[in-house]
Amino acid sequence: MKINYSAMTDHLGSSAVRDILKITQGKEIISLAGGLPGEELFPVEAVRDAYNRALAGSASALQYGLTEGYTPLREAVAGRLTDQGIPVQAAEMILTTGSQQAIDLLCKVLLDPGDAVLVEAPTYLAALQVLGSYRADIHRVDSDEDGMLPEHLEEQLRTHRPKLLYTVPTFNNPSGASWSRERREQTVELCRRYNVLILEDNPYGEIRFDETPGAYPPPMAAIDRSSGGESCVVYTGTFSKIVAPALRTGWIVGPAGLIGMIAKAKQAADLHSSAIDQRALHELLMSFDIESHIRLISREYYSRMKLLSAEITSRGLMGAHFQEPRGGMFLWLTLSGGINTTDLLPFAVEQGVAFVPGEVFYSSQPMKNTMRLNFTHTPPELLPQAVERLEKALIAYNAHLEASLARTLN
Amino acid sequence: MKINYSAMTDHLGSSAVRDILKITQGKEIISLAGGLPGEELFPVEAVRDAYNRALAGSASALQYGLTEGYTPLREAVAGRLTDQGIPVQAAEMILTTGSQQAIDLLCKVLLDPGDAVLVEAPTYLAALQVLGSYRADIHRVDSDEDGMLPEHLEEQLRTHRPKLLYTVPTFNNPSGASWSRERREQTVELCRRYNVLILEDNPYGEIRFDETPGAYPPPMAAIDRSSGGESCVVYTGTFSKIVAPALRTGWIVGPAGLIGMIAKAKQAADLHSSAIDQRALHELLMSFDIESHIRLISREYYSRMKLLSAEITSRGLMGAHFQEPRGGMFLWLTLSGGINTTDLLPFAVEQGVAFVPGEVFYSSQPMKNTMRLNFTHTPPELLPQAVERLEKALIAYNAHLEASLARTLN
Repeated sequence: MKINYSAMTDHLGSSAVRDILKITQGKEIISLAGGLPGEELFPVEAVRDAYNRALAGSASALQYGLTEGYTPLREAVAGRLTDQGIPVQAAEMILTTGSQQAIDLLCKVLLDPGDAVLVEAPTYLAALQVLGSYRADIHRVDSDEDGMLPEHLEEQLRTHRPKLLYTVPTFNNPSGASWSRERREQTVELCRRYNVLILEDNPYGEIRFDETPGAYPPPMAAIDRSSGGESCVVYTGTFSKIVAPALRTGWIVGPAGLIGMIAKAKQAADLHSSAIDQRALHELLMSFDIESHIRLISREYYSRMKLLSAEITSRGLMGAHFQEPRGGMFLWLTLSGGINTTDLLPFAVEQGVAFVPGEVFYSSQPMKNTMRLNFTHTPPELLPQAVERLEKALIAYNAHLEASLARTLN
Repeated sequence: MKINYSAMTDHLGSSAVRDILKITQGKEIISLAGGLPGEELFPVEAVRDAYNRALAGSASALQYGLTEGYTPLREAVAGRLTDQGIPVQAAEMILTTGSQQAIDLLCKVLLDPGDAVLVEAPTYLAALQVLGSYRADIHRVDSDEDGMLPEHLEEQLRTHRPKLLYTVPTFNNPSGASWSRERREQTVELCRRYNVLILEDNPYGEIRFDETPGAYPPPMAAIDRSSGGESCVVYTGTFSKIVAPALRTGWIVGPAGLIGMIAKAKQAADLHSSAIDQRALHELLMSFDIESHIRLISREYYSRMKLLSAEITSRGLMGAHFQEPRGGMFLWLTLSGGINTTDLLPFAVEQGVAFVPGEVFYSSQPMKNTMRLNFTHTPPELLPQAVERLEKALIAYNAHLEASLARTLN
């Protein structure tokens, strides 16, 4: 029968990452495309023990739970956030199915079709998809390596009167960039002045490559909560990168009224997220040294990033340039001007390597000569080969471009 | 700061069940209000073993998974459904965070504000909340004990040109009623003729009190798929009632194009549901005799229902009447005409018993003298006391009504 879909479905693009992962399935491809943590670093035994303990107690562990999430885990997460400079009460937070659901639910209770939202360029692809699904009017704010430019931000705030500013200010996906303290402060101040909520999406903030105390500015949520006045920062994080993604447990922090509204929306959406996973995570936090584990994975990811960085630098890749990220999971590569990385991708797959073309991370005016490279999932011994294949793909792509040009000229 | 919520939030009622559960927390109350399975029947050891096996293999069990769900579990669920007369390929099904998310995602890809939807009266409260959140124009179809009345259904189809008909035709929540085969066939036929999708929500269908083969009509999805022509039935089910709710694993079955669209919406909503829970459920299905377990809980629930039924019958409850459900988890009680069960509830809580007032299950024209009683969660030895307390509450409520009336007349 003929199905008449809702208007939102016109704005549900399929993820390019997803399509690429489909292409690469079953082939001998080194994929730097996914945003996946390194599996060999997952604390599998500790997780298994945690599930055992979570299921060793009363049968009520298997019963329906609260929409807001398992209270002891909420309290434990609130405690960790407080330690990180974001003082939080459990009533100001709910647990979600990964931080992706946090983004979705916030947009659901906030955005009507046509409402303006400001984003960075480039920014997290799946956030653009969520914003698109609510038919938001998305506007970009220009940035440099320290974050959004205050002048442009204010201009966009004044012009578009947005409801929300979405940002990944720490080890951005895809760019790896991190905002300076000053820009964080300026952004909080400007958004307060224009009565605009900020969604600070911070899945990578604990994966730090510099262990010097004070090496990094605090989260915007910490600045917001320490500076007096009414809070404008909603904060989301996740266990996906510091424990494992399959447990699908994230959180969202904000004013109690807003969190209450999100809880109502979540109740309609799925009643609650997996209560067993939440209990297991609570058991894990009680018995496993997660801070040491985060240091362990951060050091390993740092060494992989340095390896990838060195390989790219030594091969040159026809003038590609990048800034080494100071944390997180991604390296953002800008190639020379004439290269379109979406067109390059099939050549790369042909050579046996995959990446995400940069253009998918822009709401408008994409930089088509960019790409996102993940360095956390591929075994490090394969990284040199990945870069070698990328170089071969560039050579083949350029030869193809020149041949096309020659045909055009003939 | 002032938060301007989206228009959908005006339609996000809090669940009455939820509010009642809050009232009853920490009190000595026998609650027949929740829709909870009996905890003492959960297969805790088998579930724990299943998680152990799910986490004993490769670390990839902890990695991001497919939006559609863990393939071996999809295949196993498709196999069970096929055995139940609903032939399904894995591509026609995705796994969701409980069947609540299935309802939400289907409405999301289907409904724009003002789109008409037909429902039974009474019907599942949380489905009404989802429909409300998409600002659907909800219309009821009159029913008798065999299901929707075909004449009224056709009138409503013609008048409102709905996009969707939502129904729980087997052991309805809240009424416990089950549709006859004839009404199922007529409804499928009418909806095909008017090009309307049916969402058959079937969380309780396997909890059957009559073990005679052929005692029950097939699901509408089975009728739909066996009768040729283009399928109009979308089908959702869940492990919440046959294994345990905390695992939050449901499924939705429909035409491959629709399921693909729902997968896109799910990707934006939460990337995917817990992959560990899905792997554990797959392990459970491989090693645990779930069919025997379902017979075990069905027999126990049957004996509890009979006990509740006998207690109500013996006390009379001032002329209350009901039909014994032939399966599921709920008994629907209709009291004498002048009683408003919402007003009765505080008297009941005062006496130490809770129920859900029937009016919350109606989209319009509620029958205010009804209530939903759950018989699966309360230990059976407490059921007589629960009914005794309900009788006391009725006496106190009636005394209060008479006193009010006397004051009015004086």
